[in-house]
Amino acid sequence: MISRFSYGKPFPTGAVVRTIEPSRKPMPFFRIRREGTSVSFSLDLTPEEIIFGLGETVRGINKRGHLYESWNTDIFNHSEDRKSLYSSHNFLIFFRRDRLIGLYLDDSGRVIFDLGYTKRSEAVITSENGNLDVYLLEGGQLKDIVHEFREMIGRSYLPPRWAFGYLQSRWGYAGEEEVASVVEKHRERHIPLDGVCLDIDYMVDYQNFTWKKEAFPDWKKFNQRMKDEHIHLVPIIDAGIRVREGYSPYESGLEKDAFCRKESGDYFTASVWPGNCCFPDFLNKDARDWFGDLYRPLLEEGIEGFWNDMNEPALFFTKESMEEALSLVERQKEREDDYEGMWALGSAFGSMANNPKDYQSFYHRTEQGTIRHDYVHNLYGAYMTKATADGIRRFMPDRRYLLFSRSSFIGAHRDGGIWQGDNFSWWSHIRLALQMLPGLNMCGFLFCGCDLGGFGQNTTEDLLARFLQLGVFTPLMRNHSALHTREQEIYRFETWEAMRGTVQVRYALLPYLYSEFMKAALRDEMYFRPLAFDYPEDDRAVHTEDQLMLGENCMIAPVYEANAEGRYVYLPEDMLMIRFRSAEDYDLERMEKGDHYIRLRLHEFPLFVRKNSFILLGKGAESTDELDDSSLTALGWLEKEAEYAFYRDDGVCTCPSLNQGLTSIRLKPGDNTLIYPAATSAKDDSDYS
Amino acid sequence: MISRFSYGKPFPTGAVVRTIEPSRKPMPFFRIRREGTSVSFSLDLTPEEIIFGLGETVRGINKRGHLYESWNTDIFNHSEDRKSLYSSHNFLIFFRRDRLIGLYLDDSGRVIFDLGYTKRSEAVITSENGNLDVYLLEGGQLKDIVHEFREMIGRSYLPPRWAFGYLQSRWGYAGEEEVASVVEKHRERHIPLDGVCLDIDYMVDYQNFTWKKEAFPDWKKFNQRMKDEHIHLVPIIDAGIRVREGYSPYESGLEKDAFCRKESGDYFTASVWPGNCCFPDFLNKDARDWFGDLYRPLLEEGIEGFWNDMNEPALFFTKESMEEALSLVERQKEREDDYEGMWALGSAFGSMANNPKDYQSFYHRTEQGTIRHDYVHNLYGAYMTKATADGIRRFMPDRRYLLFSRSSFIGAHRDGGIWQGDNFSWWSHIRLALQMLPGLNMCGFLFCGCDLGGFGQNTTEDLLARFLQLGVFTPLMRNHSALHTREQEIYRFETWEAMRGTVQVRYALLPYLYSEFMKAALRDEMYFRPLAFDYPEDDRAVHTEDQLMLGENCMIAPVYEANAEGRYVYLPEDMLMIRFRSAEDYDLERMEKGDHYIRLRLHEFPLFVRKNSFILLGKGAESTDELDDSSLTALGWLEKEAEYAFYRDDGVCTCPSLNQGLTSIRLKPGDNTLIYPAATSAKDDSDYS
Repeated sequence: MISRFSYGKPFPTGAVVRTIEPSRKPMPFFRIRREGTSVSFSLDLTPEEIIFGLGETVRGINKRGHLYESWNTDIFNHSEDRKSLYSSHNFLIFFRRDRLIGLYLDDSGRVIFDLGYTKRSEAVITSENGNLDVYLLEGGQLKDIVHEFREMIGRSYLPPRWAFGYLQSRWGYAGEEEVASVVEKHRERHIPLDGVCLDIDYMVDYQNFTWKKEAFPDWKKFNQRMKDEHIHLVPIIDAGIRVREGYSPYESGLEKDAFCRKESGDYFTASVWPGNCCFPDFLNKDARDWFGDLYRPLLEEGIEGFWNDMNEPALFFTKESMEEALSLVERQKEREDDYEGMWALGSAFGSMANNPKDYQSFYHRTEQGTIRHDYVHNLYGAYMTKATADGIRRFMPDRRYLLFSRSSFIGAHRDGGIWQGDNFSWWSHIRLALQMLPGLNMCGFLFCGCDLGGFGQNTTEDLLARFLQLGVFTPLMRNHSALHTREQEIYRFETWEAMRGTVQVRYALLPYLYSEFMKAALRDEMYFRPLAFDYPEDDRAVHTEDQLMLGENCMIAPVYEANAEGRYVYLPEDMLMIRFRSAEDYDLERMEKGDHYIRLRLHEFPLFVRKNSFILLGKGAESTDELDDSSLTALGWLEKEAEYAFYRDDGVCTCPSLNQGLTSIRLKPGDNTLIYPAATSAKDDSDYS
Repeated sequence: MISRFSYGKPFPTGAVVRTIEPSRKPMPFFRIRREGTSVSFSLDLTPEEIIFGLGETVRGINKRGHLYESWNTDIFNHSEDRKSLYSSHNFLIFFRRDRLIGLYLDDSGRVIFDLGYTKRSEAVITSENGNLDVYLLEGGQLKDIVHEFREMIGRSYLPPRWAFGYLQSRWGYAGEEEVASVVEKHRERHIPLDGVCLDIDYMVDYQNFTWKKEAFPDWKKFNQRMKDEHIHLVPIIDAGIRVREGYSPYESGLEKDAFCRKESGDYFTASVWPGNCCFPDFLNKDARDWFGDLYRPLLEEGIEGFWNDMNEPALFFTKESMEEALSLVERQKEREDDYEGMWALGSAFGSMANNPKDYQSFYHRTEQGTIRHDYVHNLYGAYMTKATADGIRRFMPDRRYLLFSRSSFIGAHRDGGIWQGDNFSWWSHIRLALQMLPGLNMCGFLFCGCDLGGFGQNTTEDLLARFLQLGVFTPLMRNHSALHTREQEIYRFETWEAMRGTVQVRYALLPYLYSEFMKAALRDEMYFRPLAFDYPEDDRAVHTEDQLMLGENCMIAPVYEANAEGRYVYLPEDMLMIRFRSAEDYDLERMEKGDHYIRLRLHEFPLFVRKNSFILLGKGAESTDELDDSSLTALGWLEKEAEYAFYRDDGVCTCPSLNQGLTSIRLKPGDNTLIYPAATSAKDDSDYS
C-alpha cells in the first residue's frame, strides 16, 4: 500500500510514473517538524532495527548509524565519512520484526538522512527546501515493498546483451592505435572482451562530440574494424559545452538558447575539462532535444553505447570563486607566519570545485517556470541521461543502446545504468561496491557495476583479481583506471591466465545472468538483494553485510581482503557451492545451512546455488556475439525435480516479452550436471519487433 | 643467529645495543644491486610466503603486496594507499614452511619496501642513501627470531602502572575548569579514569613549556587537586621552538646553539603551531640535554607524563615554499581558464607541508660530523624521545614516567611508547590499529594504542563502543579526538553506562594485563602476536588477520564492523570464551578448536583463554591507585592443573626484577572461577629499590 503526502510545492521530478493522489490524513509513524523552509521527519528506532536503501552511498547494506546527504557531488575519495556521492536515491526501508516501512522522498534538492547518528534511537530525515512528495509504503514483506515501489517508478533500463560482456577502459587511451593494441592483446591471449570505453582523450581539447582526427583518422572505418572483431567502442560525453566560437555544439546551443543562465541573464560558465564551459539546461525539454541530437554524428558512425560523465554537474571553478581565492593571496602575503591563512588559501584553491555558492548562481527554465539550480540540483545528471536516451531512441528506436552515467536520480533508472563512481584501488572498495548494489537495485538501477581494479590510486595484481571476481556477477563488468595510475589491463600481470579464467566464467554464465537480469527488470524485481529479503526471519541472514542474493536462486560472497586464502560464509539454507577457477575448472560442494569457512585461493571464487534449484553454464566465448546458448550445462544440488524459467531474446529488441522469452527447463535429481538440449530456443520462435 | 652486513658508511642510529661485527661473507638469500647511491635487496617469494613486520604502517598483519616507504610523515589520512606514516620500523620477517628470515635495515634515511607490489613473486627493498647496516636473523621459530632481535635492540620502555589506566584526551580542552569538569563527569558516573591529556591549547600561543596563566592560574595546586582525585595530567610537547625574543626556550636554545641550521649558517625555520619555529638538533647530545631540562619546570609542578608530538618533524611551510607558491599565483592570474594551473596552486598551498625539499635544507651536528637532515630524517622523533626521557630521568631517576611520541624509530622503544598516530573515526581504523600492533611489538614498542573513538572526523556511538573494546587490551588506552570533531567523552552518549562497563573490564583485568605486559617487556617478548607466532603449523591461524594473541594465554578478536551483531572467530585450539559486558557481567563458554560465529551485541566483547590456563580478574576500581589486586578471581577451562606466573610490583620502580615480582599461582580443575587468596603478594615481600 502506497500513500503520498505532499509538503510545500514539490517540483515534479519525473521519478514517479504512477498517479497517486496525495493523502489528506497526517503521515503515520513519523513526527513532522518545520523549521524555516525545511521539513523533518523523525522516527524512533528499536535497537535491532535495520535500515536498507539510499542506493549509491558509502557504508554498509544496513545504513544505520551514519549521516548521509542527498547532494550529487563529484567526490574523488569514497571514504567512510563521506555524506554524499554522485547520485541521490532517496528510498529507504525501515525493517524490524513488527514493523516494515518503505519511504521515498521525491525531492530534487538537498535531503539529510540522520539515521541514528546524532541519537542512535532516532532517524531524522530533513528536506532542506521543504518542497517534496513523501511516499510511504506498507504491507507485505521486504520484496513486496520494493516491488510496489518499482512499479511506481517504472521499468528499469534494458541494455543490449553485448553490454554484459567484459569492457576494458582507461583514462588515457589516446587513439585507435592504442585501442587496437589493447584489443589485440586481449584477443591474442583469448581474454574475452566486448568493448573498449573511450575516456576524454579521444576528443579534441575535451570538447564533446568531437574526436581527434590525427588519433582517429577514419572513425567509421575503425569502428567497423572493431565491430568485425566483436568490439564495441563506448565514448564518454561530459555535461559541459566549451565556450568557443566556431565550436558547433556551442554555437547551436546558443542558437537554441539551451544553456543555463545566471540571474543577470548572462550565461553561467565554469571551468571543467575543456576549460570554460556553458551548461545545457537539461531540465528544459527543448535543450534536451537539442543535446540528444548532438549524439547523432557518433551514432551515424556506428557507435551504440555511451557513458555520461561530470553531470552532477562537476565544476572545477568559476571566475568568481577564482577571484575570491586570488584576493585571499594578497592578504596572505602580508602575513607570512600565518598558517591558518595559508591553509585557507590551500583550501580556497584546492576546494573551489563544486562550490555550493556556484550552484545557487544559475537557473533552469522548466515547465514549472524558472527555478534556481540548487532546488533541483540532484536532477541534473538524471535529465542528462534522459536527453541522451531520448536522442538515441530517436535515432535507433528498434535497438537497445548502452548508456551509463555517473550522476543519477530515481527516474534515470528507466533510461540508463550507472557506474558506481570514481572509486579507488582499495580493498575496502570491493566491499563498498558490493554493499551499494542492493540499494541501487531497490531504486531500479539494475545495470551497474564498479570500476574493477579501482579507478584512482595504483592497483595490485591480487586486488584486480578479487575485483574481477565480484565483476563476474555485476551487470556492468568494466575494468577502468585513471591517468597516472598503474596500468591494469589483465594481460599486464604475471597471473593473467588465471584472471582470464575469471572472465571466462562471466561469459559461460552470461546466458544465465542475462536471463536473471532480464527477469528482474521485466518483473520490477531486484537482481541483487540483501539476504534479509529472502530470509527475513533468519536473524543471522538479516545482519549479513558481505554476501548478496543474486537472481532467483544464487548467492555471492566475494573475497575482499588482501592476502586472504578464503573467507567465512553464512548459508541461510543448504546450497551447492561452485568454486570457480575458470569456466572449465571448478569444483562442486554440497554445503549445509550454517557457517562455513571456505578456502578460496587468489584465483578461486564461489557461487552458491540453493538446494533444489540449478544454474546454467555455457561454454563461454571471447565475445557475446560468439556465445552459443543452445547447449548449456545445468549445475545444481537436486533432491527433487526442479524447474527454471530461462529467459532468452535477441539481445537488442526494445520491447521484449517475458512470456515469449521464457523457456521452462525441468531437471530431475541425479547427476549434478546435465546437458540441456535447447531445441525450443526462444530466439527462433519469437517475434520481438 | 644474527649476521650483520654493512653497506657504505652507516650512520650509527643507536637502534642496536649489542655489538655484532660485520660479516665478511656476502649476504645470503638476497640479490644485491647498486644504482647510484642506492642499494637494493631482492628476494624471491613463494606464493604462500607471508611477510610480518614494518611496525607502524597501513594494511594487514601480512604486509605482502604493497609498497611501503620508511619516511616519517605527519599524514592525516591513513588510507590503504599510504606508503608512510609517522614512524620507521625497518624490521621484517619472511615466513614460509621451509624458510624463515628476519631482516633489519638499520638505516636512518628513506627505505622503500616493494613487498610483491611490482611483481608478486619478488620483494625488493631499497635503501635510498645506500649507507646502512643490514641484520639477518635465522634459526628457530618466529618467536625466536623476534626474541633475538629484541635482545639486540635492548629492553622496552616500562611505563608506570597508572599509565595503564583509562586516559581522556581532546584537542581543545582549554583550561582547568574544562578539565575539572571532564574529570567530574567521569567520577560522578563512576567511569574509571586515571588521566587527562592536555593538547596544545594549554600553552600560551602553542609555545612549548609555557601554560596559560588565565586558564591554569595555579598549575601546581590544580595538579595536586587532580592527583587527589587520582588523575594525572599529561601535557603535550611539540618539536618546534617558537622564534620569539624573550621566550625563554628560544633564548636558551640560541645560547646553547641547540637549533638546526641551513648550509648558509642561518637557522632553519618553518611554521608550525606556534608560528615560525626553530628546530632543536636532537641528534646533538648538548642540544638533547638542553631540551630535556626544559621539562623540569613541569616536572617540578608534579607532572609525571608527557606526549611528544609533531616530531617527524612536521613542517606546515617554510618561507621558501610559501614564496614559491605565491609566485605561482601571479602566473595563474593571467590564465583564468587554466584548471591545471589552478590545481597546481591548490596543491602548492595545500601540500607545501612536509615538503621533501625543506628536509634537504638543514643540518645536524652529530658526533659523526655535520649531516644533512634527510640522511637521518627518520631519527628525529626518536631522538626527541631520548632527549625527553633523559631529561625526566635526570629529574626523577627512581620513578617511571609516562611518555609516548608520535614519531619513532627503533631504539626509541627503550625510552617511551607511541600512539598510533592521528587516525580517523573510521571502522576500518579499528582493524588497522589491531593489525599494526604485532608489528610494533616485534620492534619493541609494547606501550602503544590508537586514539579510541578516532581522532579526525566525527565518531558515532557504536564506533566509540567498539574502539573501546579494543582499547581494553592495548597498554595505552586513550580516548582522543580533534578540534571541530564531535565530542566523544563516554558520558556524552545514550549508552554511556554500557561503555562504562567496558572500561570497568579494563580495570578489573589491569593486574593481569600489567603482569603480561611486564613479563613481555622484561623477557624481550611480544605482548601482542599474530596467531602465526603461536601456531606456525596451522595454515588457518597463519593467515588470520583480525585476531591477536595477547600475553601467554589469551587471544582477542574485537568487532570492527558497523551494525555487526557478532563476528567469526577461528580458534587454533580449545579455548574458554569470556563474553564481557562489564567486570561483573560476563558469561563463559567452552569452545572447541575451529571456526565459530560469536554473537556479540554492541556492548559485548570477547576474550579467549587457552584451555588449561587461566586469567585473573580483579574487582576493578575507578583509578589504578585504588585497584586492589590482593584478591583476584581466576577464569579458565581447566582439565588439568595449571600454573600462572603472576607479576606484580609497585608500579613505579625503574629496575623491576622479574624474579622478585613473580608469584606462582596454581589452579586445579573444577570450578571455572576461584578466589585467589593473595597472601604471598609480591608487593609486600620484595625490595625494588
